[in-house]
Amino acid sequence: MRMVDIIHQKRNGGALSEDQINFFINGVVSGDIPDYQTTALLMAIYYQNMTVDERTILTKAMLNSGDRLDLHKIPGIKVDKHSTGGIGDKVSIPLAPIVAAAGIPDPMVSGRGLGNTGGTLDKLEAIPGYKVEESEAQFIKQVSDIGLAIIGATGNIAPADKKIYALRDVTDTVDSIPLIASSIMSKKIASGTDALVFDVKTGSGAFMKTYDKAKELAQALVDIGKNAGIKSIAVITDMSQPLGNKIGNSLEIEESIDLLKGKGPDDLKEVTLTLGSYMAILGQKAQSFNEAYQMLDKVISSGAALDKFRQMLKAQGADDHVIDDYSIMPQAKYHFDLLAERTGTIGQLSANEVGIASMMLGGGRLKIDDQLDYSVGVVLHKKVGDLVKEGESILTIYSNHQDVAEVKALLNNHISIVETADKPRLIYETIY
Amino acid sequence: MRMVDIIHQKRNGGALSEDQINFFINGVVSGDIPDYQTTALLMAIYYQNMTVDERTILTKAMLNSGDRLDLHKIPGIKVDKHSTGGIGDKVSIPLAPIVAAAGIPDPMVSGRGLGNTGGTLDKLEAIPGYKVEESEAQFIKQVSDIGLAIIGATGNIAPADKKIYALRDVTDTVDSIPLIASSIMSKKIASGTDALVFDVKTGSGAFMKTYDKAKELAQALVDIGKNAGIKSIAVITDMSQPLGNKIGNSLEIEESIDLLKGKGPDDLKEVTLTLGSYMAILGQKAQSFNEAYQMLDKVISSGAALDKFRQMLKAQGADDHVIDDYSIMPQAKYHFDLLAERTGTIGQLSANEVGIASMMLGGGRLKIDDQLDYSVGVVLHKKVGDLVKEGESILTIYSNHQDVAEVKALLNNHISIVETADKPRLIYETIY
Repeated sequence: MRMVDIIHQKRNGGALSEDQINFFINGVVSGDIPDYQTTALLMAIYYQNMTVDERTILTKAMLNSGDRLDLHKIPGIKVDKHSTGGIGDKVSIPLAPIVAAAGIPDPMVSGRGLGNTGGTLDKLEAIPGYKVEESEAQFIKQVSDIGLAIIGATGNIAPADKKIYALRDVTDTVDSIPLIASSIMSKKIASGTDALVFDVKTGSGAFMKTYDKAKELAQALVDIGKNAGIKSIAVITDMSQPLGNKIGNSLEIEESIDLLKGKGPDDLKEVTLTLGSYMAILGQKAQSFNEAYQMLDKVISSGAALDKFRQMLKAQGADDHVIDDYSIMPQAKYHFDLLAERTGTIGQLSANEVGIASMMLGGGRLKIDDQLDYSVGVVLHKKVGDLVKEGESILTIYSNHQDVAEVKALLNNHISIVETADKPRLIYETIY
Repeated sequence: MRMVDIIHQKRNGGALSEDQINFFINGVVSGDIPDYQTTALLMAIYYQNMTVDERTILTKAMLNSGDRLDLHKIPGIKVDKHSTGGIGDKVSIPLAPIVAAAGIPDPMVSGRGLGNTGGTLDKLEAIPGYKVEESEAQFIKQVSDIGLAIIGATGNIAPADKKIYALRDVTDTVDSIPLIASSIMSKKIASGTDALVFDVKTGSGAFMKTYDKAKELAQALVDIGKNAGIKSIAVITDMSQPLGNKIGNSLEIEESIDLLKGKGPDDLKEVTLTLGSYMAILGQKAQSFNEAYQMLDKVISSGAALDKFRQMLKAQGADDHVIDDYSIMPQAKYHFDLLAERTGTIGQLSANEVGIASMMLGGGRLKIDDQLDYSVGVVLHKKVGDLVKEGESILTIYSNHQDVAEVKALLNNHISIVETADKPRLIYETIY
């Protein structure tokens, strides 16, 4: 078998066989296939796409290139959730204890953030003592004992994907649906879950800016899942404005705990419980969406979800006093209000620029080894569709620098006040 | 400037700027741009094409990456010819002395063959003593003195093209019109000519199998020529069957000399004089095609062209006795006739398979360092449209091996005898 023939077949729009895809992935990992042939094939895939079968084979080949967690010792149907990410998206943090409290084991292997905001692990590390690293045995024991854990990847997960992703990044082949979908699926299946719920975000603050692309990705993830024997549901949700009201690492932990206390903002609660309800259905803890939703609402009001969160904090070495005293997390020195220049309705509040503002304040990272400032961020007092009076605060900027003129200017340019505006739809569509 | 942004622009179908193309080519030559980014861009170009301006800029950038012959000391308008190559295509060998005899200086920098048959230089080396290597000064002196020379490339011609071509070969990005055209043009312009006539072949034995692709390439070459200030004309000619009757290195020299003696086959003469006539027009030695054609016909019948050929042989160290005694060239030990199995008309005589047969006999090379057998080849007694009687010889195979069963079988499978068949059109179209 020759790599040039594999490139030829894909270049001309043909489907690759299982042997061809395995030859490719094995060659990438062994180094037998030079990078210049890999990138030519990736660009051909960008233009010619892959069938569901090809995507599934690619997913399995990348999965098999590395370690796979074996969670069969944990009783019950393990269900995990993956989000394509967005601004203010702290859903994983309240979601894991909520579903765990409802009896669905959630072994969550999460990541750090690259770009505008921190990832789930970064946010959790704002809590003093929280350890994201666990051995496979510790992870299995914790999920068996208390039903949840949120940790970083253990072992050598999908090394083929790592190599390919690095090449995609420098050859402009990142936004290819078959490559995105098989990359996500290979890593999620490697984390040992039985079923998956995806939150595919769409809008200015999302990786998939357009609805069509988001839907294509959602369908691709669900199709691979079906083909690979992992039950999957994808929900397309809005990311035109930030999710919830708080953006920043410590700030998002506050809002997550607020939600577990029954005080979280409506949009964050709705997305969290919608995803959780599908997890409950896949975990066979509920027959219908409504039944699941009510069950999850109850574990919040009963305090069971908050209690699960406390158990997780203790299990992972964190100081659980944070639940009652947010000030034990890093706090910003200064805060500044952005005031409405006129009376009206918020028409636009671009998630993308709120994310950039958060990064400018120090809450995100550009390079993998940039240090995060957990304390900084933005708190929104108004969202799209809300009325605002001239001089009223639209949002508060939390910073460790006194000069936030640039951040204010950026936000001002991407917030509009208009005559009337509807609240944007939050949950668009469910793909299963 | 970042290479990933250049890839992005082309990937999305945008035109690259002069700065971007120069950045790319300079980076390829310096090694600053890694091969995996180069091949991603080449694949994007394969799908997204390039405008005439981009192709011209790319041609100039590759041209400027290496040496360029300076032929201004040679008086007159220098005109060269380039063929995309085909089976039995020995046109350059009689053409150069014909146009030189008509007063058009032809400084021909030619190549070796890779694939089914030898290149022009390989064929000339079948003549004892012929030297293809000359210094720039020798080359200029010879063309000034006698009006022609056929040599191999001197100096460091278009190193960027060399590097890119090697990568295209292993990433299936060879058959891209903008990449083919700029590769050809950068090398031809580097050889110092003032004007160019292209023979773009189409059919089974050609690089461009379909007429549409041949026409696209012809137009691309002429457009770049115009844009780069090199007057160019392209002629699309048939390569569905071999050109002329003799295929093989010594055999093609025989047929070339036959043509110069006024005894060459009609199709070879027509293609040679057609290309030569356009060279005469570009060289301002004739006002019209007909005037040029008659002038060239005359330098054959007068013996002036044959004399020019003799001058070239002497200047390049070859034994000019070859003109009167073909047997001083390597001769095959055995010959075998392929007999017609029934009476009828030759309907097909696939150039591609005659080429493969020639390579199987040892007349072509698969790898750059394969040794050629100058003596072997095929002589056609019948061509498409010719009547043939059962038992009559269609062709003779010249071999140094006694077993030519495989070669015979291949040829038999690709020669058809039918009721009636027209002779194929030889000259399709002229692009200028």
